Amino acid sequence: MKKVGVAILGLGVVGGGTYKILTEHREFYHRSHKLDISVEAVLERNPEKAAALGIEPEKVASNIQEICSNPDVDIVVEVMGGVEPAKTFVLDCLKAGKSVVTSNKELFCKYNHELEVAAKKNHCGLFYEASCVGGVPVIRALLDNLQGNKILSMMGIINGTTNYILTKMASEGAAYEDVLKEAQKLGYAEANPSSDVEGYDAAYKLSILSSLAFHTKIPYTRIYREGITDISVTDIEYGKKFGYVLKLLAIGKNGDNGIEVRVHPSFIKSSHPLASVNDSYNAVYITGDSVEDVMLYGRGAGALPTGSAIVGDIIYCATHSNYQYSTFKNTEDAAPGTKFVDNFESAYYIRLNAADKHGVLAKVAAIFAKCRISVAQMSQEREPVGEDGSVPLVFITHVTRENNVNKAVALINECDEIAKVAAVIRVVS
Amino acid sequence: MKKVGVAILGLGVVGGGTYKILTEHREFYHRSHKLDISVEAVLERNPEKAAALGIEPEKVASNIQEICSNPDVDIVVEVMGGVEPAKTFVLDCLKAGKSVVTSNKELFCKYNHELEVAAKKNHCGLFYEASCVGGVPVIRALLDNLQGNKILSMMGIINGTTNYILTKMASEGAAYEDVLKEAQKLGYAEANPSSDVEGYDAAYKLSILSSLAFHTKIPYTRIYREGITDISVTDIEYGKKFGYVLKLLAIGKNGDNGIEVRVHPSFIKSSHPLASVNDSYNAVYITGDSVEDVMLYGRGAGALPTGSAIVGDIIYCATHSNYQYSTFKNTEDAAPGTKFVDNFESAYYIRLNAADKHGVLAKVAAIFAKCRISVAQMSQEREPVGEDGSVPLVFITHVTRENNVNKAVALINECDEIAKVAAVIRVVS
Repeated sequence: MKKVGVAILGLGVVGGGTYKILTEHREFYHRSHKLDISVEAVLERNPEKAAALGIEPEKVASNIQEICSNPDVDIVVEVMGGVEPAKTFVLDCLKAGKSVVTSNKELFCKYNHELEVAAKKNHCGLFYEASCVGGVPVIRALLDNLQGNKILSMMGIINGTTNYILTKMASEGAAYEDVLKEAQKLGYAEANPSSDVEGYDAAYKLSILSSLAFHTKIPYTRIYREGITDISVTDIEYGKKFGYVLKLLAIGKNGDNGIEVRVHPSFIKSSHPLASVNDSYNAVYITGDSVEDVMLYGRGAGALPTGSAIVGDIIYCATHSNYQYSTFKNTEDAAPGTKFVDNFESAYYIRLNAADKHGVLAKVAAIFAKCRISVAQMSQEREPVGEDGSVPLVFITHVTRENNVNKAVALINECDEIAKVAAVIRVVS
Repeated sequence: MKKVGVAILGLGVVGGGTYKILTEHREFYHRSHKLDISVEAVLERNPEKAAALGIEPEKVASNIQEICSNPDVDIVVEVMGGVEPAKTFVLDCLKAGKSVVTSNKELFCKYNHELEVAAKKNHCGLFYEASCVGGVPVIRALLDNLQGNKILSMMGIINGTTNYILTKMASEGAAYEDVLKEAQKLGYAEANPSSDVEGYDAAYKLSILSSLAFHTKIPYTRIYREGITDISVTDIEYGKKFGYVLKLLAIGKNGDNGIEVRVHPSFIKSSHPLASVNDSYNAVYITGDSVEDVMLYGRGAGALPTGSAIVGDIIYCATHSNYQYSTFKNTEDAAPGTKFVDNFESAYYIRLNAADKHGVLAKVAAIFAKCRISVAQMSQEREPVGEDGSVPLVFITHVTRENNVNKAVALINECDEIAKVAAVIRVVS
């Protein structure tokens, strides 16, 4: 039976889950894969975390060098998160000839080039399935299954915290701030939630996924990013009346005009498979030129689901020897000649607080026409009247360009005695 | 650039799709994978099929030996279907040192042992992602992503023809025979539809998927199998009233009492993610002890989606050298000591045509009680009265055992002056 020694850097939620899976399944992997996988060392500043998991004190390393020089360690699991010291530790391990399995999306998205160069040079494996969408098998699907396709688009709900918040807001009619507080109490959102609610986490993941899909590095700094902090229940409820569900979508497209990558709140038809992905579930909907539509759905976070992806990579690493690296060019930036689309096309949901007097609709319509925006659906209701006596006026536009909408919003706000723009949300299909 | 020569055995729907993808993407694979993949030979009895695809006559082989001895062929794609001559051809190719990519579920499910032994012996790859659920990346997910899990259950809609028929019956209220005829006209069902509608195709696929999931060979002959030929619109519509959708599900479970594997029409709650998998879309819903729930969704058949899986395997084969084989024991039967559950647990939908006289309900209830069946929901309606003056009486039971239901059905039918059993359909959750 092949012996496989593992070290875990960081015993947070995912590190603890990985430890639990490995120890509870040790006998099972003897039978299923003829592998004896043992956790030989952990690196964790807080000794209580190791003790709580029942890890013998002699397995708790004092520093990364003890792990690098431990001959019983074959594979290092990096689940610390953040760039430093994770980056230094991963490079140290690769230089010491240890293969690395990481769940660290920020590190991998920012420094995959440097890490992969080090891994290749030292003939080590570098695996990162757990960095994107927890237990959902999306990295390997892009690397191994869908590689015969030109990927045309991907749309993902790839952040569990924001999907939990939006699902609760929709089902309970509760305000963003209240649901966020509840999510923090339940441990679904962090004390400082900005990485999740402002879309950074989703942008890191989209950077990794779109780089694999489009065969060129997509730096996360090229991704248009907008979070959910300004979303109001009012808009979720208007959307529902038009047959839409609000989700924070990560979108990557590769069309004739170039690549567009963006993370923003989006209305999506309630009949779309992504619309019923609720709570902390995640999903990625991929369209390829041969495979047509594929959706991969599951738990996007959590100790055991993310641990499942890490252990899958550990077993893969232990049973393969000629490691593959990403098929996109390992550069720090997109391949030369890559075109990005910024002024992208979309339909829009636009809610105005309009003055309750004659001629307002005509003026708004004139601005839309001037900006080449054509209206697909419209709704005006008597209620609720705003504190300033304004009435809500909601439009769904036909597909137009981002610039046109920005121009129209500026023009409407300029003459704010007639109407003020209360919300602009993209409608995707 | 690495040159990769491919031969295609059979230019049917999938063979034609594979040829199309490979030729149209040749330049693309130069850039994306530094591979020059060319179709060097085809084997096809009907010369018109090769001509229609624009294949030069000199590439059409007259027999398998020409392919085996062709030094430009590295990988053979077998998309003929059926056991013979596919099996002989695949073995010939493996013996000649060619790696094989197959979409042939019947061949792989019945003879994977013999084929894998030959592949290992000749240091060839043997890939079969396309054998199950078309373009949906389920084989590799089980082999590579979810291998850290004990898989507890899988439920799949894994036959496109039957899902198309059941979706149409539900949406249009049309009878089975009429929808089947329409599906045959559209090419969604074959002239002899029995492999699909009687559940053989789904059973072949479930054999392969459950063998991977449960790490032991599951012969398809161990799979309980029931098709959709007896399904009536009446039952689909009663089910809808109770909140259920009817699907042909392939189910594999690995519980404390053993393994159960079955293919049969099933009512599933309309809120379950599988319930909205419609038309020719397929999906597999997998529950693992770590990953929790994962669903993989997409086109389960068709020239390009299945071709996508084949080309994915070709590229994988061309970029990897230490081929992995299935992780289940390559025996002809289940591993010694494997227990199978036949008398499985389920809830049931039971529809009776009951005589319209007093005491009938009491007698039926007494039979249910005697057979340890407890009723969860019931519905009796005035209409429609049968030709024999009977009235429909529909029950949803709590979870019970298969044997109990069989006994109750026999007892009710014995005293058929009170009621006749018109339909029994399992209700899964």
